[in-house]
Amino acid sequence: MKSKLEKIMNPKSVAIIGASNKPGSIGNELMRQITGLKFTGKIYGVNPKETEILGVPVYDKIYNIPEKVDMAVIAVPAAAVLQVVDECNKAKVKNLVIISAGFKEIGNEGLELEKQLLQKINAYGMNVVGPNCLGVINTASSIKLDASFAPELPKQGRIAFASQSGALAGGIINMLPMLHLGIGQIISLGNQTDINVIDAMEYWESDKNIDIILLYIESLPDPERFKQVATKVSKTKPIVCLKAGRSKAGAKAASSHTGSLAGDFATTKGLLASCGIIQEISINNLFCIAQVLEKCKLPKGNNLAILTNVGGPGILATDTADDEGLNIAQLSEETKQKLTQILPPQASTHNPVDMIASAPVEHYEKCAEVLLNAPEVDMILVIYLYITGKHDIDVLKSLNNLKQKYPNKPMVGVFMTTEDFNDNIEQQVPNCNIPVFEFVEDAVRGLSGLYQRKKYLDSQNISTPNFKVNKRAVKKIIEDAQHKNVNNLSVAQSLEVFEAYGLPIPKWGSARTLNEAKDIALKIGYPVVLKISSNTILHKSDVGGVAVNINTPEQLTAKWNTMITNLKRQNLTDQVDNIVVMQQISNSERQFVLGCVKSGNLGHQIMFGMGGIFVEVLNEVAFRPTPLSINDANDLINSTKAKMLIGDIRGKKAADKKLLSYALLKLSQLVTDFPLIKEIDANPLLLDDDGNFSTVDARIII
Amino acid sequence: MKSKLEKIMNPKSVAIIGASNKPGSIGNELMRQITGLKFTGKIYGVNPKETEILGVPVYDKIYNIPEKVDMAVIAVPAAAVLQVVDECNKAKVKNLVIISAGFKEIGNEGLELEKQLLQKINAYGMNVVGPNCLGVINTASSIKLDASFAPELPKQGRIAFASQSGALAGGIINMLPMLHLGIGQIISLGNQTDINVIDAMEYWESDKNIDIILLYIESLPDPERFKQVATKVSKTKPIVCLKAGRSKAGAKAASSHTGSLAGDFATTKGLLASCGIIQEISINNLFCIAQVLEKCKLPKGNNLAILTNVGGPGILATDTADDEGLNIAQLSEETKQKLTQILPPQASTHNPVDMIASAPVEHYEKCAEVLLNAPEVDMILVIYLYITGKHDIDVLKSLNNLKQKYPNKPMVGVFMTTEDFNDNIEQQVPNCNIPVFEFVEDAVRGLSGLYQRKKYLDSQNISTPNFKVNKRAVKKIIEDAQHKNVNNLSVAQSLEVFEAYGLPIPKWGSARTLNEAKDIALKIGYPVVLKISSNTILHKSDVGGVAVNINTPEQLTAKWNTMITNLKRQNLTDQVDNIVVMQQISNSERQFVLGCVKSGNLGHQIMFGMGGIFVEVLNEVAFRPTPLSINDANDLINSTKAKMLIGDIRGKKAADKKLLSYALLKLSQLVTDFPLIKEIDANPLLLDDDGNFSTVDARIII
Repeated sequence: MKSKLEKIMNPKSVAIIGASNKPGSIGNELMRQITGLKFTGKIYGVNPKETEILGVPVYDKIYNIPEKVDMAVIAVPAAAVLQVVDECNKAKVKNLVIISAGFKEIGNEGLELEKQLLQKINAYGMNVVGPNCLGVINTASSIKLDASFAPELPKQGRIAFASQSGALAGGIINMLPMLHLGIGQIISLGNQTDINVIDAMEYWESDKNIDIILLYIESLPDPERFKQVATKVSKTKPIVCLKAGRSKAGAKAASSHTGSLAGDFATTKGLLASCGIIQEISINNLFCIAQVLEKCKLPKGNNLAILTNVGGPGILATDTADDEGLNIAQLSEETKQKLTQILPPQASTHNPVDMIASAPVEHYEKCAEVLLNAPEVDMILVIYLYITGKHDIDVLKSLNNLKQKYPNKPMVGVFMTTEDFNDNIEQQVPNCNIPVFEFVEDAVRGLSGLYQRKKYLDSQNISTPNFKVNKRAVKKIIEDAQHKNVNNLSVAQSLEVFEAYGLPIPKWGSARTLNEAKDIALKIGYPVVLKISSNTILHKSDVGGVAVNINTPEQLTAKWNTMITNLKRQNLTDQVDNIVVMQQISNSERQFVLGCVKSGNLGHQIMFGMGGIFVEVLNEVAFRPTPLSINDANDLINSTKAKMLIGDIRGKKAADKKLLSYALLKLSQLVTDFPLIKEIDANPLLLDDDGNFSTVDARIII
Repeated sequence: MKSKLEKIMNPKSVAIIGASNKPGSIGNELMRQITGLKFTGKIYGVNPKETEILGVPVYDKIYNIPEKVDMAVIAVPAAAVLQVVDECNKAKVKNLVIISAGFKEIGNEGLELEKQLLQKINAYGMNVVGPNCLGVINTASSIKLDASFAPELPKQGRIAFASQSGALAGGIINMLPMLHLGIGQIISLGNQTDINVIDAMEYWESDKNIDIILLYIESLPDPERFKQVATKVSKTKPIVCLKAGRSKAGAKAASSHTGSLAGDFATTKGLLASCGIIQEISINNLFCIAQVLEKCKLPKGNNLAILTNVGGPGILATDTADDEGLNIAQLSEETKQKLTQILPPQASTHNPVDMIASAPVEHYEKCAEVLLNAPEVDMILVIYLYITGKHDIDVLKSLNNLKQKYPNKPMVGVFMTTEDFNDNIEQQVPNCNIPVFEFVEDAVRGLSGLYQRKKYLDSQNISTPNFKVNKRAVKKIIEDAQHKNVNNLSVAQSLEVFEAYGLPIPKWGSARTLNEAKDIALKIGYPVVLKISSNTILHKSDVGGVAVNINTPEQLTAKWNTMITNLKRQNLTDQVDNIVVMQQISNSERQFVLGCVKSGNLGHQIMFGMGGIFVEVLNEVAFRPTPLSINDANDLINSTKAKMLIGDIRGKKAADKKLLSYALLKLSQLVTDFPLIKEIDANPLLLDDDGNFSTVDARIII
């Protein structure tokens, strides 16, 4: 199927509806941009009051343009948009970019207008970007389309950027030279009434001019399709995303900005991660990573060498590398030997390699080449600080030359120098293939993004197991519950479900009589606990329905009788199916939470993290959407500090990580098999000193 | 006492020893800089081979200069330095800046030379910056001293910067225009053989030209004096510090760079915090905060208003504000009403105030004035994104004008625009008083630093209580231990010490006979635990010296007898003073660690954080040097996620924060009273469901 964006991004002819001769008006700026970038196709203006704008012929109505128009850009007041859409349909122009604002973003009145617009789009079978957007840009030399009112003309590049904030996309165009970036395509998404961020990703997947996809999003449309498409696209092209609204206050601001719910950040983060999307939290970082992804091939590993003429920034780079999970490469004796031959005795040949302040260009070149040849080094950060004699451009040139000789090993540069350096790059190193930064932190973050990409691609080779489970047993339990018209599974039912899917639970049995209970206790061994199993009594403790620390048959008898008396007194006996006798698991400080929630419009989310009381206070809980891959499961385990509790601690045995990831996968399989399940909550999931997991309390809601 | 830096930073005459006519040599660059900035005093060169350099008269020896020389800059090879120092002494020049490298930073050989240098400095009573440094700069118009070989001439400002990395200081000078900063003084500290970072802070405290002190440090010289001086200085001038070597790898790099131990980062961080120093982790942040501190007064509170023409960056600013502990101000109805009157209907008058992309300069001006007048707003972030019509400079001008009318409320600007904006500021808004950034994150971090400063100054008004304690009891215990020549206090001794200083411990008593034990148990109530009390048996459990879960006198008898038998069998009876009977505290998930360590050269550090097994895995432990102020104690409690465990959680009562801070203060008082104490470790310190603390296990080493 052809992409809805095909003609919009590659038109042979464009009409600007609302084109204007009035300087400063959007209709005028659109004409200025499209003519300014020298669009390779035909341009027409549409405005009943004009005949020519900037040398372009203008018609009163789009249907009066004598030739075929591939795409129209609409920049008329909101109230006139529907009529213009009708006219486009009359002219058989099916591809539109609607710049006009005044739709759902302004509240109820606009929402109604937007609904009507959508009806027309569907009825006419149109492809529409916007409304309330800045336009689209395609810098490819065969197209040169700037159908936007961004103030500056963009520089060509291989990066695509889709932005839910139109003005942000525009602002970035102004800043591209400072960010050392060119751009291939920009789509300002606007209200995403028809074409959305998913269409953009899908379109760029097959565009040969695009290598890297950047997204700025405030909300996720259609999470299921987003996940499907993004997962597919990110197999071949890296996607880097800045999601605004991380904080509660930010999410509130985002909602009032786009009129769409920002959604819970933790679950959105999980969804993006499961698609292999690299996530950033600032515009600056987004473009730092873009620069490195554009100019570097993937590294073999995470061993970083730092080459500098100044110690301080080398140390700061080391600190950031540590934050970002990069390893400071241990240089081999051979490498150090080679460096020693080049450098003066005051220099340090340990990593960071400190060539001292007076290092000439020649030292940069020779040492960088040694590191490029060192098998123990996977990527190189070169720091130049202008201190005696200004060699910034010469150092960059020599690195750029080396890059041609060694294209495979990532190498980035940090130049702490005067402002004119930026302008000089453009002129003196025109096709610079070395990513360039002002601060070491930015450079290291860029390399870290590159390594993240490498890790993600590697992880795609592991296949996800499918577990043999007792699906029939669960089916029966859920049907029973539906039949009884209850939402909460009882303790016994929940345990049966966990058992059927091989999830970790203590030994247990359900009893209808004291004698049955005694038999079970004998079988599983004391101490045991008693819990009433009911679909309707939710707070078991409140009605005396829980008894713990039962060490002997005598204690069992006593507690059983008290429990029964209690239930009778409260007239609750009918609501209780039976009483569960369960092995008492001794408390452990290693408490986790394992569960599944249906979050907003994001579908089922598997949850894992630090449990017990720590759920609320530490917020060390992460989410991934179902179905989980083995990669997702491992990621989920490693996403929070819970991972550190799983290891060996003070004689407490480490958990089997594989079994844990299997438990997560089984949970995913369970909710995929039974989408009716709304919530599963195993909290705490205890890890005992021998490294075994047990769910002490499991709750399932359908 | 006059500062050692007085004459070095304010000389009336300077001699450059090693001055040279050779372009590119350090001796030549020094001459170029000092003449370039137009030093207001007299300049002389010293070089036997020259007679004039850049119009400056040159002498063969410093003692042959006919007039008085206040300060000499030495840039000769390391091997010649000692002789030159002798010659300076002969010439009665006591103030030196030694640029020359080749001292302790190159290893053993250099270390020897540095020792000899120090001997001469002391013998001659000299004041010396360096060696191995870049020099010093003072831009004050009465001085205009650039005694450095930094490549660019600095712009005047009110910020002082002391850097342990000389080249970094030089690099920053190049970048100052990009960072929108001027500089008052720079001291490249070098090896700090004589004058160190502490002298620099102390000197700047009384310098009227300096408002803000920035530090880049890799190691801390003389932590005790550092704390004393920094605490005093930061009462009147903000100190912002970038400490390199946060990570293990970074600390290693720093050690090999300066030849001095970087020290443990956590304890250094605690020390800096206790002095009121604002800590940053990147060069960029350091200068972001400097810009805001320089141009803004302190805010009244942390309520931030964001004024923008684009939603996206407003949301991103909101997210960062949340990260940084700033609050998004809730605008009053009155304020919103005023904004509504200015803005078009599509604009949002909620905070972030989104004026929409087309906002003219007039809207910026009027809305900013509304926010400046709004009592619910403590600081303002204005975002301008160039999108239709370029008004960047005009917006900045109007903000700068408003600033003159409303000098007290902090207001910063983010300008996402083209690169020429920076150059235009210099020309068109020459005395711009609005801090200017490219990215919202930087601006918010700057404001957060400003608010941190405000909070610190406020907290200085609270006085620290002095507790009534039983000092005599502790004195006796420690003397006994010394007399017995043991380092580890026994369980009973440790409990007595805690008791004497009012620290939270369970009920307890020590018994010599079973009957005594029974009496104690009866008094404190079952369940109890038994622990042997010994100065020499460190691992009590290993020898059967601990018994828990004793619920009855019978159980007590049994366990007591077993314990005694065990000890006898192992011939350990002589090593046991008595047996402690202690109330058994039921385990709690709320586990903390409270303690004191002597860390490297940093002295006693009080430690608090998440305890039990979490000490190792979560690393949520913070430190503060003794003596603790009440402010330190509160800070310490709030420094880690432990603070969240202290609050109300699921029916578990919150702890009394005041009592907890008192416990920290008492611990500080204890080690201040008895500096012999080497280590105290109360782990876990349990918080029960009623909100009471108990130390289950306390260890004291002297």
